[in-house]
Amino acid sequence: MLSFSDGDEAYLAELAEYVAIPSVSRDADPATMRRAATWLADQLGFAKARVEATGGHPAVIGEWLRAPGAPTALIYGHYDVQPTGDLSEWDSPPFQLTRVADTVRARGVSDDKGPVYIVLKVMKAFLAQEGVPPLNLKFLFEGEEEIGSPHLDGLLASHAEALSADVVISADGAMWRPDEPSLSLGSKGLVSMTVTVNGAAEDLHSGRYGGTVANPAHVLAAILASLHDSRGAVTVPGFYDGVPALPATRRREIAAVKFDERAYADGLGVSELAGEPGYSTLERLWERPTLEVNGFEAGGKYTVIPHLARAHISCRLVAGQVPTGVLAAVSGFIQARPTMGVTVSVIPDPGLVPAYSISVDHPAVRAAREALNAVYPGEAVLFAKIGGSVPATTLFEERLGLKTLFFSFSTSDERLHAPNEFLRIKRLGEGMRAWEVLLRELAMRLVGE
Amino acid sequence: MLSFSDGDEAYLAELAEYVAIPSVSRDADPATMRRAATWLADQLGFAKARVEATGGHPAVIGEWLRAPGAPTALIYGHYDVQPTGDLSEWDSPPFQLTRVADTVRARGVSDDKGPVYIVLKVMKAFLAQEGVPPLNLKFLFEGEEEIGSPHLDGLLASHAEALSADVVISADGAMWRPDEPSLSLGSKGLVSMTVTVNGAAEDLHSGRYGGTVANPAHVLAAILASLHDSRGAVTVPGFYDGVPALPATRRREIAAVKFDERAYADGLGVSELAGEPGYSTLERLWERPTLEVNGFEAGGKYTVIPHLARAHISCRLVAGQVPTGVLAAVSGFIQARPTMGVTVSVIPDPGLVPAYSISVDHPAVRAAREALNAVYPGEAVLFAKIGGSVPATTLFEERLGLKTLFFSFSTSDERLHAPNEFLRIKRLGEGMRAWEVLLRELAMRLVGE
Repeated sequence: MLSFSDGDEAYLAELAEYVAIPSVSRDADPATMRRAATWLADQLGFAKARVEATGGHPAVIGEWLRAPGAPTALIYGHYDVQPTGDLSEWDSPPFQLTRVADTVRARGVSDDKGPVYIVLKVMKAFLAQEGVPPLNLKFLFEGEEEIGSPHLDGLLASHAEALSADVVISADGAMWRPDEPSLSLGSKGLVSMTVTVNGAAEDLHSGRYGGTVANPAHVLAAILASLHDSRGAVTVPGFYDGVPALPATRRREIAAVKFDERAYADGLGVSELAGEPGYSTLERLWERPTLEVNGFEAGGKYTVIPHLARAHISCRLVAGQVPTGVLAAVSGFIQARPTMGVTVSVIPDPGLVPAYSISVDHPAVRAAREALNAVYPGEAVLFAKIGGSVPATTLFEERLGLKTLFFSFSTSDERLHAPNEFLRIKRLGEGMRAWEVLLRELAMRLVGE
Repeated sequence: MLSFSDGDEAYLAELAEYVAIPSVSRDADPATMRRAATWLADQLGFAKARVEATGGHPAVIGEWLRAPGAPTALIYGHYDVQPTGDLSEWDSPPFQLTRVADTVRARGVSDDKGPVYIVLKVMKAFLAQEGVPPLNLKFLFEGEEEIGSPHLDGLLASHAEALSADVVISADGAMWRPDEPSLSLGSKGLVSMTVTVNGAAEDLHSGRYGGTVANPAHVLAAILASLHDSRGAVTVPGFYDGVPALPATRRREIAAVKFDERAYADGLGVSELAGEPGYSTLERLWERPTLEVNGFEAGGKYTVIPHLARAHISCRLVAGQVPTGVLAAVSGFIQARPTMGVTVSVIPDPGLVPAYSISVDHPAVRAAREALNAVYPGEAVLFAKIGGSVPATTLFEERLGLKTLFFSFSTSDERLHAPNEFLRIKRLGEGMRAWEVLLRELAMRLVGE
């Protein structure tokens, strides 16, 4: 067994350096992104890690091999983070690691800088204490995960040989709950878009022009309201195309999961749960596609007819749905509405992502289960799915022919993508130990080329 | 005839001083508001003008009498302005008077600082050239017009004697079009409110929580979409209560107004006009109540389920509608919808305003028509209505028993309440001449006490 004896204080000091780099892929300048990539590459100097251009934000690629013919795992993660959003909603500066009880708060600390940091420490422990890794390892950390990984496909295509492996282990993709070990056997796909309704050239006084022109806010509200029925099912024709009926076995499996709806609702601060009729909460979360309005904006508070109204929509997809088909269905449905003198446009975000899944019998899943059993003895490992989307998984499958195991020590309640993102400190030590066991188990279970 | 020979440059330099005071009644500090009031009172020193406390932003009150028993006009206006909104939408600093071709741009220059400035110059011309005004004059300039005049009622009640007069002449309330003289025989009422939908305690990741909770943005969109039918009529039960059928005579009168719908649409930048079915554009603008969503906001652009969605709604009322009844109808309709675990609140803005009207046969309307004929010879004076709301008119009627004549040289296309508000420079000279004639005509037509 490796020794991880640095202690939380040393870990947190180092992690603080990493999160202090505001690597917001959506709008950071190239120098900042490169600084984060370089920090990561420097940590993995022994693995010949290098910052690799991609056409967008650079990636970090490295390899640390044990022996020819040994099985190879490609470790994946990302160094970019979500935008902070409104700074006034943060209780401390988002890029300053702030300890709060048994957690640390910062943008990206849970998604995905903390989980990647765990990997770095495990590597250094193997290097210092055993000199070699238990199996061949390759590394790929990208800087565009939060914007849909637009250049990952090209990178994988041009580096297919260098990145060849037997499996991908992703340090991204959170555990479902903080109080039990879980593995995710899939992730939802993602299609998202911006809907813009343009009216007059300027905001108009609601009295002096009221009653003469269509109001873009009304048109957009009508569009958004038309996307679901009154009970919460998506009404867009074609949206559910290809979604298989939920097998009875899976329904039973999900029904057996201990899940306290009341506590879940209380935890979120809502009086009741809601969603597509005919499915339980967990069925909706894991097995059913969703369409959410992520936000909208128009005008101001006062008495104008706004000249523009805009909304962002994201659809989370399940296996069977074709991303381009969903995009065409939603976009076509929106644009087919009569608009009385205003114009409606739908601009898809780059990076359509199909849903992804891995079998419970895959050797990497078995190895991961062993690793979690070692760190959380006596606790059954729950098989969940990730409601979020990890576009990289599909690309690994398509470009490298590899399945991806999600093995993150982030937890899905840690305000990922929201203000006051945090990470549980104890996950650092647990994650290091688990990664050690995982790699040893993979070395035994995977068959190298 | 008075001589107005200062010239535009001198006028604009003085007006620039006035608009430079950022007297935004919604959020300026008290010292700034007082500075604007004091500037105005200083200009009217000969009229014993003073800054008067109101419980909110102060008012400016003065009087300049010709003779006991002569008729008396109370001149009304306001020194407060709308918020600037997003500064990036302004082409020059909003509180710096900026000349652009034959206009000047600044927040408040058209609503209502320019029109009030015209009054000041006419008073000074009478003072310098004739020593006395043509009739008794009283002055009332408030600092809360843009927030619904919340303290005006109390001020009128406590100063009823000091403000007693035969008619009110309002320097607020724009002309309908720039290319013909018009008088407004009424204004719409106003009821406005903020609708807030609260969901979870925080924004939630749309993947990790999608399908489990109601989305406040969906609920708000459904609420807003339910307020109108697909053709543009308001669907709220009770909204149209008390609205009289439009008389055939008025319909004919409106049909006779030269109005180029295509040019109007082009001017606003929309491909077609729209509104309540069964009425022409001008009928809707002048004679029909409206309900407009002034703006909304929720979440951000990216992949969250927003925890809160908010919209502001304003209703413009016509004679016959009871403001409290409209508020109750809209608020009740909104709150009666099922919401699936989120909460909906409706907070009315202060200052409900009923609609107002003055007869075409009122002596002040006749005097005003003469004044416009003098300044715009050969051009027929059009009788329009103000789509906007001037709460003061109702209060003058209720508290002082006075009708109000709108006599402003602002024009309704001058981006009132929007970025890049402007005033046509030629209106300064035209307005001064017209006010002179108006006051002389009033002196002859009004019967003093």
